[in-house]
Amino acid sequence: MRPSGRALDQMRDISIETNVTRHAEGSCMIRCGDTHVLCTASLEERVPPFLRNTGLGWVTAEYGMLPRATTTRMRRESAAGKQSGRTQEIQRLIGRSLRAGIDRSALGERQITVDCDVIQADGGTRCASITGGWIALRLAVNKLLKAGDIVSDPIIDHVAAVSCGVYAGQSVLDLDYPEDSEAGTDGNFVMTGAGQMIELQASAEGATFSKGQFAELMGLAEKGVGELVAAQKAAVA
Amino acid sequence: MRPSGRALDQMRDISIETNVTRHAEGSCMIRCGDTHVLCTASLEERVPPFLRNTGLGWVTAEYGMLPRATTTRMRRESAAGKQSGRTQEIQRLIGRSLRAGIDRSALGERQITVDCDVIQADGGTRCASITGGWIALRLAVNKLLKAGDIVSDPIIDHVAAVSCGVYAGQSVLDLDYPEDSEAGTDGNFVMTGAGQMIELQASAEGATFSKGQFAELMGLAEKGVGELVAAQKAAVA
Amino acid sequence: MRPSGRALDQMRDISIETNVTRHAEGSCMIRCGDTHVLCTASLEERVPPFLRNTGLGWVTAEYGMLPRATTTRMRRESAAGKQSGRTQEIQRLIGRSLRAGIDRSALGERQITVDCDVIQADGGTRCASITGGWIALRLAVNKLLKAGDIVSDPIIDHVAAVSCGVYAGQSVLDLDYPEDSEAGTDGNFVMTGAGQMIELQASAEGATFSKGQFAELMGLAEKGVGELVAAQKAAVA
Amino acid sequence: MRPSGRALDQMRDISIETNVTRHAEGSCMIRCGDTHVLCTASLEERVPPFLRNTGLGWVTAEYGMLPRATTTRMRRESAAGKQSGRTQEIQRLIGRSLRAGIDRSALGERQITVDCDVIQADGGTRCASITGGWIALRLAVNKLLKAGDIVSDPIIDHVAAVSCGVYAGQSVLDLDYPEDSEAGTDGNFVMTGAGQMIELQASAEGATFSKGQFAELMGLAEKGVGELVAAQKAAVA
Amino acid sequence: MRPSGRALDQMRDISIETNVTRHAEGSCMIRCGDTHVLCTASLEERVPPFLRNTGLGWVTAEYGMLPRATTTRMRRESAAGKQSGRTQEIQRLIGRSLRAGIDRSALGERQITVDCDVIQADGGTRCASITGGWIALRLAVNKLLKAGDIVSDPIIDHVAAVSCGVYAGQSVLDLDYPEDSEAGTDGNFVMTGAGQMIELQASAEGATFSKGQFAELMGLAEKGVGELVAAQKAAVA
Amino acid sequence: MRPSGRALDQMRDISIETNVTRHAEGSCMIRCGDTHVLCTASLEERVPPFLRNTGLGWVTAEYGMLPRATTTRMRRESAAGKQSGRTQEIQRLIGRSLRAGIDRSALGERQITVDCDVIQADGGTRCASITGGWIALRLAVNKLLKAGDIVSDPIIDHVAAVSCGVYAGQSVLDLDYPEDSEAGTDGNFVMTGAGQMIELQASAEGATFSKGQFAELMGLAEKGVGELVAAQKAAVA
Repeated sequence: MRPSGRALDQMRDISIETNVTRHAEGSCMIRCGDTHVLCTASLEERVPPFLRNTGLGWVTAEYGMLPRATTTRMRRESAAGKQSGRTQEIQRLIGRSLRAGIDRSALGERQITVDCDVIQADGGTRCASITGGWIALRLAVNKLLKAGDIVSDPIIDHVAAVSCGVYAGQSVLDLDYPEDSEAGTDGNFVMTGAGQMIELQASAEGATFSKGQFAELMGLAEKGVGELVAAQKAAVA
Repeated sequence: MRPSGRALDQMRDISIETNVTRHAEGSCMIRCGDTHVLCTASLEERVPPFLRNTGLGWVTAEYGMLPRATTTRMRRESAAGKQSGRTQEIQRLIGRSLRAGIDRSALGERQITVDCDVIQADGGTRCASITGGWIALRLAVNKLLKAGDIVSDPIIDHVAAVSCGVYAGQSVLDLDYPEDSEAGTDGNFVMTGAGQMIELQASAEGATFSKGQFAELMGLAEKGVGELVAAQKAAVA
Repeated sequence: MRPSGRALDQMRDISIETNVTRHAEGSCMIRCGDTHVLCTASLEERVPPFLRNTGLGWVTAEYGMLPRATTTRMRRESAAGKQSGRTQEIQRLIGRSLRAGIDRSALGERQITVDCDVIQADGGTRCASITGGWIALRLAVNKLLKAGDIVSDPIIDHVAAVSCGVYAGQSVLDLDYPEDSEAGTDGNFVMTGAGQMIELQASAEGATFSKGQFAELMGLAEKGVGELVAAQKAAVA
Repeated sequence: MRPSGRALDQMRDISIETNVTRHAEGSCMIRCGDTHVLCTASLEERVPPFLRNTGLGWVTAEYGMLPRATTTRMRRESAAGKQSGRTQEIQRLIGRSLRAGIDRSALGERQITVDCDVIQADGGTRCASITGGWIALRLAVNKLLKAGDIVSDPIIDHVAAVSCGVYAGQSVLDLDYPEDSEAGTDGNFVMTGAGQMIELQASAEGATFSKGQFAELMGLAEKGVGELVAAQKAAVA
Repeated sequence: MRPSGRALDQMRDISIETNVTRHAEGSCMIRCGDTHVLCTASLEERVPPFLRNTGLGWVTAEYGMLPRATTTRMRRESAAGKQSGRTQEIQRLIGRSLRAGIDRSALGERQITVDCDVIQADGGTRCASITGGWIALRLAVNKLLKAGDIVSDPIIDHVAAVSCGVYAGQSVLDLDYPEDSEAGTDGNFVMTGAGQMIELQASAEGATFSKGQFAELMGLAEKGVGELVAAQKAAVA
Repeated sequence: MRPSGRALDQMRDISIETNVTRHAEGSCMIRCGDTHVLCTASLEERVPPFLRNTGLGWVTAEYGMLPRATTTRMRRESAAGKQSGRTQEIQRLIGRSLRAGIDRSALGERQITVDCDVIQADGGTRCASITGGWIALRLAVNKLLKAGDIVSDPIIDHVAAVSCGVYAGQSVLDLDYPEDSEAGTDGNFVMTGAGQMIELQASAEGATFSKGQFAELMGLAEKGVGELVAAQKAAVA
């Protein structure tokens, strides 16, 4: 029934390749099916003005898409002169999600910027960015720990995200682009390794949804995030 | 326990004053406690390019805040030269929410722009904008129906929204600013008059939350939206 | 002869409601007929860089219009990415006018920003903004005096403004929109309570005007400003 | 008493050199003392959208200053990414003033853009721009008449402008920069060859002014504009 | 003597991987040592307005760098709100270079946009973009030829580019970042497969250079471009 | 054969008028045939942040064109809200070229900004800007030397520039606009008084060019720069 032939609760193949760029303190290429996102974590020994002399660190994120990551070429945001509302919404979500998994006091007064750049898109780019962004963050923090710059690990738990939605009347896990563009309801679920919730978003794109449908989506999401966390563990082992 | 002394499941006082401006096709001033939003609906007999010759109408929304709607003055977005990510996120949410309650085919090829301008802010401005925006939309559509420009009512159901969150460890309904700025979890719930879900968003601001906590928030939201829909009915009666 | 039926030298009804918002140090809603402007004064204990360590204070103004304050909806300036030339011209005029009525040395090194936001427009919005802006300023300064933060009153005199013009060949006072859009000559007169001039502007919109016509407009303006100052006195009494 | 040693009612030396650039349909370099402005008129056989099929033409103006036209170098507006409020105010004034001297119906559906670029500044640049801009416009219209593209002269009368102000307590004509930066009141007067008023602006920069003082300024302005119109006549003879 | 230990006339290792993204009509990842650029060619069946109804096609290019392609993270140009002068200079060069190798009449009225996005930078990114951009263009044109949309091959010849410079007093081929940042003279040479020149640029960064030194650089460039063209031939074989 | 009737190796008439504006520390109007550029040098006793406390000075340049410097009026860049890629490319070239002729250590921690504003354009504006910009710089430095603010002359040598190109199949010197717009190859050559190279740029605009053709262009350029340097010497004598 799904265009890809997947079972309703079946994720796309996940692959996480670590340390893919030479300069970043942490990096990975995450591939969720045909969605490929390059995530890098950049460390700076300074914090934004509102955090100076608080002893607290900061984790922030930026998101971008190469112009031809998509089926038809999109205008480059730097040429348009501004980031779209969608881009800003996504990068705010990534930043909030990653901050929920970190003890900013243990990180100390330094900032880590996670850049998530979509090389190829097939739905679910914000979720792949969160899942891959966590890997880049983990690797950058490992470098700090190894160098002795921080003594206790500021990372509290895994953070991973998956989308679920109602496609052709049925609840399905990990929407790809053909499903996403047709889905009646579309949701993103960001969770921890322990199964706690960080951010839930569900939106009626055509038809409204019931509490029961939402519960189904959440069940699927828990299964999916479990698999993503396992993939994260394997990647950073 | 709540700064305002309200019960955990108690809404702020709601007041909806209709037809408050002379020019707009529909308008209201909605007051949810100390949060006051002026909502206007403007009708145009044209649609965005992607809808031309489709027979479908469009409902969109814009959101703004007067510079001194808040405790300390904020910079005017027109002077800053761009709308913030927060503003864009909110106006996209209002637009999606209102579109979920309308039959765009029955509306025909015309556009209604709902402007939500916050005159005074005390938390929950996006929810008040959705609830009040629906009133402005309802009144503008009534004008079309009365004039005979459309024959069947394109409005499918009420649309209203409320925030809930975990404040001081307890689930509370309809957060005001002192609660919102301290809440561990903060959520917005957009629903129809029939109790169907349009958009759910919940975000961990300090501590993650469990499925059980989210269920509590949703229960509170259902109560709150019920009261908002009753206030809408009274206002447009 | 006038569309509103008013006499040539008759002002529209003036209403000034004070302390209309909870957060601002001073505020009012001024209504000149169907022109309604919300004016707030925001106090900051800092001055622009060019005034640091001079002992002088600063009063500045910003002006905006809600998108549907007008007959047809106008594009939101924050969405357009810049303030129009008209907006900048008006807010510079308001700021200059209010500064002419204040002793910046007595104010001390602090800044008051007066925001004038047009809720509904029917001509004369810049004049209503000056007249109402002075009220907001007066109330904010009263708060400083009451708190003992300043000892001598920095406000020298009332500042109020009215428009006059040549409509259908005759000099008329306090143009509303139907008159303004047809007027051959259009002027704005900013004066003090003592009848001194702060700013005069008169512009030929269709036909040029003579010295005699200008003298007539000035005579009308003196009458109008007198009535506005009386209304200010009543409002802050 | 004046820094330049001029009499109170004495203009600076005026020089108008015509046809100074090769490409423009009309051009001049106007020098009012040390204020030098290059004015060009560019003709296009099209009008802005709001005038299409009305039979009416359009005259508009733009204003700029070379970065080192002033005592200290100013930032280039193209590098700043926007025109200042002052620039916009000035170019709107120039455009309005020139339009008041033209019969747009006789001009026909074509647009003339008058560019006024300040090469060297010593006060009074907006007035010099209007006076010189009229010359450029006159020459461009002459070309249209000579070519037979229009049959009756659309230019109704001369348009010229001068500043007056209260300097060191006395009313003076044609302020230079040292006077302008110290003046208590500063006004710009745009008039026709026949002595009719097009635009009057007077502003209290430090002290307010009386009706009597304003009458003095207007008297001086009438004398000054008379001399400017004579210089215009000589230049285009 | 070179930081990398290469001979003076030795290129870095070149690798060209084709068809690396799913959506673009042509694509490659080109790696010149540690400089990695993703090049995509996007085809549109329309041309810019100035070419409509001329029968001529258009090839244009855009260039970008991921924020952490470099040693220290650079600000994202979309967040800065504009493309830097350097970015614009580079993308104009890439576009001009690729157009020099194409018969725009044989291409017909269609546009190919070549996007060059630097994934990792170690000097020579503009040259790698030209060399890799030609591959993407070649592959997109092959698709048009195969589909029968065009009948004669519009590609006239290979286009490739290399940098040369004077480093530590000696002329060297294919500068990497440590050399580039220290070079006294730095040049970029764009040539065809037949050895004709398309664009030469050489710039004194610290010391000026003589005709003799420039001749040495050009000799090195000819050797380098020869090797790049051979790599291009192998890649598209 | 050339539209102007000049010999293949003949420059246009050169005229350099010095000290043309009252405020700038150095200035000239350079006229290369019908290309007229006003160049001013502005001195500031501060350097950009990256040079503070290095003992080194800075020379930078900005470039602009009056809207009607060209055959048809161009949009003002300040109105467009940004400088074009072409403008940025040119001003970066002027700055680099002038810096190559100066000893920044002898200049000391001060900045000279050279503004080059094209009053009338007929091809070769960037070359005229470099040649005239050097004069403005020379005069500003003379003022510093005369005042004793610096003791040894920081100017190492003359800097001048000329364009050459292949027009109608033949190599020609100093292209004017009719030639430039038709040239197959177009190059700019920036050299010192001693004949050393500072910057070479040659670009195929229609047909590629051979090494032999480039050698011809360079020979012409050497002749042209020699004549420009002689004119510079005469101007500052």
